[in-house]
Amino acid sequence: MATRQSTLSELEARNEFIRRHVGPSPSDQKEMLKTLGLSSLDELIERVVPGNIRTSNSIEIPEPESEAEILRELQAIAEQNRIFKSFLGMGYYDTHTPTVIQRNILENPAWYTAYTPYQSEISQGRLEALLNFQTMVVDLTGLEIANASMLDESTAAAEAMTLSKRVSKNKGNVFLVGHDCHPQTLDVVGTRAKPLDIEVVVGDPGDGELPDDVFGALVQYPGTHGHIVDYREFIENVHAQNGLVTMAADLLALTLITPPGELGADIAVGNTQRFGVPMGYGGPHAAYMSTKNAYKRSLPGRLVGVSVDTKGNRGYRLALATREQHIRREKATSNICTAQSLLAIMAAMYATYHGPEGLTRIARRIHRLTCILAQGLRSLELEVKTEAFFDTLVVVTGDSTRDVLGRAHDNGVNLREVDNRTLGVSLDETTVHADVELLWRIFTGAGDVPSVIEQDDKVDDTLPAALIRESDFLDNPVFHNYRTETGLLRYMRRLADMDLALDRSMIPLGSCTMKLNATTQMIPVTWPAFARIHPFAPRDQTLGYRRLCDEIESMLCACTGYSAVSLQPNAGSQGEYAGLLAIKAYHDAQGQGHRNICLIPSSAHGTNPASASMAGMKVIVVESDHNGNIDLEDLRRRAREHTDELAAIMITYPSTHGVFEAEVRQVCDIVHHHGGQVYIDGANLNAMVGVCEPGEFGGDVSHLNLHKTFAIPHGGGGPGVGPIGVKEHLKPFLPGHFLLDKKTPVGPVASAPWGSAGILPITWAYLRLLGKEGLYDATCNAILNANYIARRLAPHYPVLYAGPGNMVAHECILDLRLLKENTGVTVEDVSKRLMDFGFHAPTMSFPVTGTLMVEPTESESKAELDRFIAAMIEIRKEIKDVEKGKLDAEDNPLKNAPHTAMDVSETWERSYTREQALRLDCQGIGSKYWPPVNRIDNIHGDRNVVCTCPPVSGYRSPDSNKHKAA
Amino acid sequence: MATRQSTLSELEARNEFIRRHVGPSPSDQKEMLKTLGLSSLDELIERVVPGNIRTSNSIEIPEPESEAEILRELQAIAEQNRIFKSFLGMGYYDTHTPTVIQRNILENPAWYTAYTPYQSEISQGRLEALLNFQTMVVDLTGLEIANASMLDESTAAAEAMTLSKRVSKNKGNVFLVGHDCHPQTLDVVGTRAKPLDIEVVVGDPGDGELPDDVFGALVQYPGTHGHIVDYREFIENVHAQNGLVTMAADLLALTLITPPGELGADIAVGNTQRFGVPMGYGGPHAAYMSTKNAYKRSLPGRLVGVSVDTKGNRGYRLALATREQHIRREKATSNICTAQSLLAIMAAMYATYHGPEGLTRIARRIHRLTCILAQGLRSLELEVKTEAFFDTLVVVTGDSTRDVLGRAHDNGVNLREVDNRTLGVSLDETTVHADVELLWRIFTGAGDVPSVIEQDDKVDDTLPAALIRESDFLDNPVFHNYRTETGLLRYMRRLADMDLALDRSMIPLGSCTMKLNATTQMIPVTWPAFARIHPFAPRDQTLGYRRLCDEIESMLCACTGYSAVSLQPNAGSQGEYAGLLAIKAYHDAQGQGHRNICLIPSSAHGTNPASASMAGMKVIVVESDHNGNIDLEDLRRRAREHTDELAAIMITYPSTHGVFEAEVRQVCDIVHHHGGQVYIDGANLNAMVGVCEPGEFGGDVSHLNLHKTFAIPHGGGGPGVGPIGVKEHLKPFLPGHFLLDKKTPVGPVASAPWGSAGILPITWAYLRLLGKEGLYDATCNAILNANYIARRLAPHYPVLYAGPGNMVAHECILDLRLLKENTGVTVEDVSKRLMDFGFHAPTMSFPVTGTLMVEPTESESKAELDRFIAAMIEIRKEIKDVEKGKLDAEDNPLKNAPHTAMDVSETWERSYTREQALRLDCQGIGSKYWPPVNRIDNIHGDRNVVCTCPPVSGYRSPDSNKHKAA
Repeated sequence: MATRQSTLSELEARNEFIRRHVGPSPSDQKEMLKTLGLSSLDELIERVVPGNIRTSNSIEIPEPESEAEILRELQAIAEQNRIFKSFLGMGYYDTHTPTVIQRNILENPAWYTAYTPYQSEISQGRLEALLNFQTMVVDLTGLEIANASMLDESTAAAEAMTLSKRVSKNKGNVFLVGHDCHPQTLDVVGTRAKPLDIEVVVGDPGDGELPDDVFGALVQYPGTHGHIVDYREFIENVHAQNGLVTMAADLLALTLITPPGELGADIAVGNTQRFGVPMGYGGPHAAYMSTKNAYKRSLPGRLVGVSVDTKGNRGYRLALATREQHIRREKATSNICTAQSLLAIMAAMYATYHGPEGLTRIARRIHRLTCILAQGLRSLELEVKTEAFFDTLVVVTGDSTRDVLGRAHDNGVNLREVDNRTLGVSLDETTVHADVELLWRIFTGAGDVPSVIEQDDKVDDTLPAALIRESDFLDNPVFHNYRTETGLLRYMRRLADMDLALDRSMIPLGSCTMKLNATTQMIPVTWPAFARIHPFAPRDQTLGYRRLCDEIESMLCACTGYSAVSLQPNAGSQGEYAGLLAIKAYHDAQGQGHRNICLIPSSAHGTNPASASMAGMKVIVVESDHNGNIDLEDLRRRAREHTDELAAIMITYPSTHGVFEAEVRQVCDIVHHHGGQVYIDGANLNAMVGVCEPGEFGGDVSHLNLHKTFAIPHGGGGPGVGPIGVKEHLKPFLPGHFLLDKKTPVGPVASAPWGSAGILPITWAYLRLLGKEGLYDATCNAILNANYIARRLAPHYPVLYAGPGNMVAHECILDLRLLKENTGVTVEDVSKRLMDFGFHAPTMSFPVTGTLMVEPTESESKAELDRFIAAMIEIRKEIKDVEKGKLDAEDNPLKNAPHTAMDVSETWERSYTREQALRLDCQGIGSKYWPPVNRIDNIHGDRNVVCTCPPVSGYRSPDSNKHKAA
Repeated sequence: MATRQSTLSELEARNEFIRRHVGPSPSDQKEMLKTLGLSSLDELIERVVPGNIRTSNSIEIPEPESEAEILRELQAIAEQNRIFKSFLGMGYYDTHTPTVIQRNILENPAWYTAYTPYQSEISQGRLEALLNFQTMVVDLTGLEIANASMLDESTAAAEAMTLSKRVSKNKGNVFLVGHDCHPQTLDVVGTRAKPLDIEVVVGDPGDGELPDDVFGALVQYPGTHGHIVDYREFIENVHAQNGLVTMAADLLALTLITPPGELGADIAVGNTQRFGVPMGYGGPHAAYMSTKNAYKRSLPGRLVGVSVDTKGNRGYRLALATREQHIRREKATSNICTAQSLLAIMAAMYATYHGPEGLTRIARRIHRLTCILAQGLRSLELEVKTEAFFDTLVVVTGDSTRDVLGRAHDNGVNLREVDNRTLGVSLDETTVHADVELLWRIFTGAGDVPSVIEQDDKVDDTLPAALIRESDFLDNPVFHNYRTETGLLRYMRRLADMDLALDRSMIPLGSCTMKLNATTQMIPVTWPAFARIHPFAPRDQTLGYRRLCDEIESMLCACTGYSAVSLQPNAGSQGEYAGLLAIKAYHDAQGQGHRNICLIPSSAHGTNPASASMAGMKVIVVESDHNGNIDLEDLRRRAREHTDELAAIMITYPSTHGVFEAEVRQVCDIVHHHGGQVYIDGANLNAMVGVCEPGEFGGDVSHLNLHKTFAIPHGGGGPGVGPIGVKEHLKPFLPGHFLLDKKTPVGPVASAPWGSAGILPITWAYLRLLGKEGLYDATCNAILNANYIARRLAPHYPVLYAGPGNMVAHECILDLRLLKENTGVTVEDVSKRLMDFGFHAPTMSFPVTGTLMVEPTESESKAELDRFIAAMIEIRKEIKDVEKGKLDAEDNPLKNAPHTAMDVSETWERSYTREQALRLDCQGIGSKYWPPVNRIDNIHGDRNVVCTCPPVSGYRSPDSNKHKAA
């Protein structure tokens, strides 16, 4: 018999996932540390992170667990949720996600690990999918231009309010909101209005009375209680007073009823969730906003547009990006800088797969079932209050209301409690005959009810004749060409293949933290017990979600040193906003409501000033010194100057310059000394977890980016989740929600109480898989990788900022300004040239124009870093050749990048060879990435704004290729 | 109020999936019918299918149902299975499928819809993955060469027996089988031996007595009851008599114990299931076989080898394909023509992800837990009979056996019943401490048991000192380079990107029916209630599977006109074999055991004669007439000549020539008249479902290919499922299994009673989604598509065979022989040139040399057919240019095809342009497929057989690219 070779505990490998997540192997780490002249990760941290903020104790997170164990635990949590059949409506409906879309978009890393399509040429696939989304929204709402999605319906409505405020000729201050709007929308609009001093008046749009100073109005269509009202006259009345009308409209209903644009509305908003996106206890889903062309420059969020590349071929890109905060800063029209891309793409694919006739059939079937339900209820002697409806009824249940609800509960059915004598019921795509018959039994208590089929002949449709939709929609070929599963599958693959995502190469984006989004983290997201839960489902059905949220909140507190966390904000920008609202409400509660100055360093991300402005604060800029750090003297001066009105400072740590500023404690102290609160932007938290805690070294509140630090994938530009952590004194001022027990002075900032709860299993799993050991290791390796790149590239590209000992934090800024001066080669040229080498570009010209910011994250291996470094060095050689005149100043591989297959196929009249253009020697066999288009013309696109699918001719499809052989 | 627009039933669209599955839209169908001069699908069928075999009644299959409803029903079926913790062992073990492998291989259409890698240049990805599999098997078993997987362990053992018989110098007739082999292996070996007149002797290999005429022996290592025996001496003894020794070995155990090759064994076989492949109630899993180089030409199944392309770069291909049946026919060494590629790839990726140290850790942990379990049982006063073991113990439970089993059942635990006083228990990767402690409680009935952790220090390992493995394994970089999830994900994506599968373009393979493998059909396969069931789990835990199998059997009967179906054969070849065994057993039972002549038409697939030979029959070839049909006169003559010995005829219908032979009823009648049975090969059943039934027009037995007609994906060369349908009189002669209640005269042909049950949900869902309406529609459109292609291409390439009215069945043969004569352009040139256009080639030179056989299936749209037709016409123009001398006879795009990125990057010295080489004008933007290698040299590969991963230098990886910039 052999003696024991290892103990059981040595063999358990509970922490195995750490080595799956962290790119550099232990031996790689050793080698990389050697490059830096260091001997251990601990030493690295000592060198990089200022001693006065380093945490001595490791964070209170459980030990790492294996992937199998984590899935087992999540299964147990999921089982604490109970899937009831939802008839709650209120903007959320069960839906059939076409399985081909679920598997090949939502569960496919080629889609979910992609980044926001700022680099157009490697993003043509997702840009096309988002253009389809915009076209779908424009067509269905009957308006002229739509953006690439909004965060949720309620924030979209709030954005519509502020858009109206900006563009309305009525300079009044009143925003009229129809009483038939969804309650969460009423609340979010209220939250948004308050700091902007807008007066929200809730009323019946039908009563004919309009205040004089109405700059805008919002109505729900169909209403939250199901009524379909003809708003033509109301719209005319508002227009007569120079106000704008926003309609919050159900896209599926719009296949049957006259769209907002045709009724005269100026803006439409709504949710596209029921187009195949699971409810997920509140999100993420893609909301939408469409409006008239006249307002396109005021449209918040992202907009995909059509342009041309250098050869005149069609290319897609983000249009009118100059609207965005990082240019306009505190004058930005909105602080939104993400969309819900992945979900917008799903919804667009759902429309592509079903086409206009399929969507109409689905809508019509729901409507017929609702008509039959109503008729049956009436025949069973119940009063149905809704006369003209699409899918929702309000039923008077009077004294038997409790009994009805009891029967509903016993049958696993959720009904909406309108009041204690009235119940609401909304049908959806998943409703079947048996459900309607069950509802009859539940409402009446009778065992014997009619059969649905028998009723069909007896019942008319109830859509108002004046509101029957007559216009066509979705007539672009894209909504007709992919009706088979094979066709759609190939279309989705073709789009994915045009793009670069994390499943092919590193995405070295500064400040964006494109780390591994592990499969085990993604798997629970599509489990029905997480996916099919209505956000307003009762507590006893959502104990699993509540436990999940509680545990994430406490783990995030442990990571950050804060006392409480709100998971509600569904993007970083919303977190910033919620954080500033908390600060404002805190000052109010202290009798310091006059404090309204927000200090923001010049290097801050543009969202910061935009958020401050939305929270009703006035922005004062604090200068940076020559090292890029906050100028302490300037800060002291400003704080002193505004000592009575100082509300807050917003800083990013480590700074957007990629360094741990040694004086951060002093910065916080100065602001606190003058009565201000410290907001620490969590964008760079990936450099801090397990190493230092913002709540410990001076922060009062931070937002965290679960889609950066905590492994939620970027989804090609959303979803994001932006929870905020606060110190004890700010806890009472976290966002509220009517579904939450506790009342707070701050209203909700999102439609759902826990925001995009459906993707929280990702973060839970991330935290538990790594455990405290892994979180520390991840942070160390993120810093190691950044310093390795900085050190290796420094001889070729100067690193702009560094901390003590010439060390950077988790990212580094390469300064190309001198190169440009000498050679004319720009950061854009280098970025586009990297595409030829198969890489996504680093962040361009942020925070400093003419630079590239590189953040490798901890998930990239030394081999991948070396491949990137080699490409950058090769590019540097090319720049040198331009400098020396070996390459022409204009006709060179940099200026002409990226190169397409067509380039090398056609006659070649360049001053360099095809071989030099393609650089196959730098790419493995079979792994050449081919950009599908040449460099795209941004100016052309913004001068000729086209934001819907181009018409038939030349539409991008192999089947309709003009040159196709006959 | 609006009046009703449509009735509810019009809106239900229960048959929606038909339009998702069938490529041509109704308007496309009309247009295509017009091309054929027809007005309806019914008319098409009347023209194509002989009137005397057409079924008048539609088949008895339920009406189609929606995808959501089918998933709901499958969920209900799944819930009838119960997942017990399995300690049954016997070659099947629970395992953790790494989620990144599950999602990105098993659930990824780029992998599962790929075809067998006969076309090397578009298959480099899966060939590399399979080469990794072979390397893994060679390394772990310590032998010299391994094939790309076997169907299951038992058939692998049976194949090892016949291999031994062929190559052994001992011309005796005895095959010795160790009594410690798995019972299913004993049975399958017995089935296989019988018709070959091999005498199987079961005994204790340790007792030293060997019969003289032993040509081979088989032992299990570790044994089915867990014992690890040192077989060195036994092997020497068998060798001394010139016999060969096969060891059925557990790959995971081989990380710790001396491998078969080092013990002197000649052959190793086994299952790789526990390398991350779910049990799936029996399969599919990849079994393996390895042997000495000397026997490589006798190795059954497929073998991946290394060769070079025309530029001398490394390329992979199937090696020694001449071993296969379609060349050697009745002299073939085996009838196996598929592998279990998808599962082999999963197992190889599991080894890649864990590497040697990871696999060793997993094995060591299982072993330690087993040691602790044994020690604990002994300390609790139980007798553990196994002394030297890896993961399996046999425990004497005596009189308390029933009690122990009762407690096990109550705790959701399955133990192996060795006999009524002895129980077996096998641990696996998923076993946790609590399981071991539970086992102690179950075995003893005591509530108070030791803790696993405490025992760890007290227990030694039990591996025999003489059998500790000392040799290294898996030292190739591929087993070291992809240890992070990001790394493995990118590696898998890179491999997938090299290949063409159905997710990118049609695969127009004649006779292989590459139809849509719908996502909804695939989804249930990975549900735990189907995936985590041991094949020998008790009946009360497998009611769901039993129901699924029953329902599939009866639907397949309805489709074919047969009376009973066995789902056991896990490949078409195994179905043929099982069908012939049934015929043979039937004749035996009729006292006609002397009937042993099997008539086979000359056009038959090579598997037919190989199977007949394995079933102990003698093959007589029947000639074809000039139309490719069976020569009735020749048939009559042969049947008369052999009237007393006639056992069967094997025909394929519609014929392998792609036509419905009008005289099929006569063929059947002639054979029946002479006392023979009619075997109708179901390879072409896709042209018959809902239109005619083999069981009705004369067949006595057929095998069906669930992976062709019934939507199971090809998985890059397996899994396949080949059930047989039989008429009533053959029902008693279907394959048996010890787990089945009924005893039959025919033994099992596969390890598990229902073969590859784990993928049967695909076929169930396919049948139910289409329903009788859709199955008919699918058949019609398959025939329509083939006739459309034939009609459109006929002016350019003659169609070799057609039935009456110039119509083909579901495929057509394009005759290129004359073109070759005139121009030197071969079918191979055209096939490789199609790759440049982004298409997989049709079937080359089968059934007629110098032709291409095209089967579009019903799932391809008119647009895709047109794209293929356009490519074929363009290629025809190129051939014409060669003919006219416009293109050089050797230096032309056909002879040089396929063209790689490197070709167009480098200096171009060809007589045609790059533009002409690439033909981007025929491909949509962003959808160019780039073959990763030039044409691969088959002769070089077979002359220099290398079937394991090449050593480090030049290994295909971007990180190790020789040309990489520093």
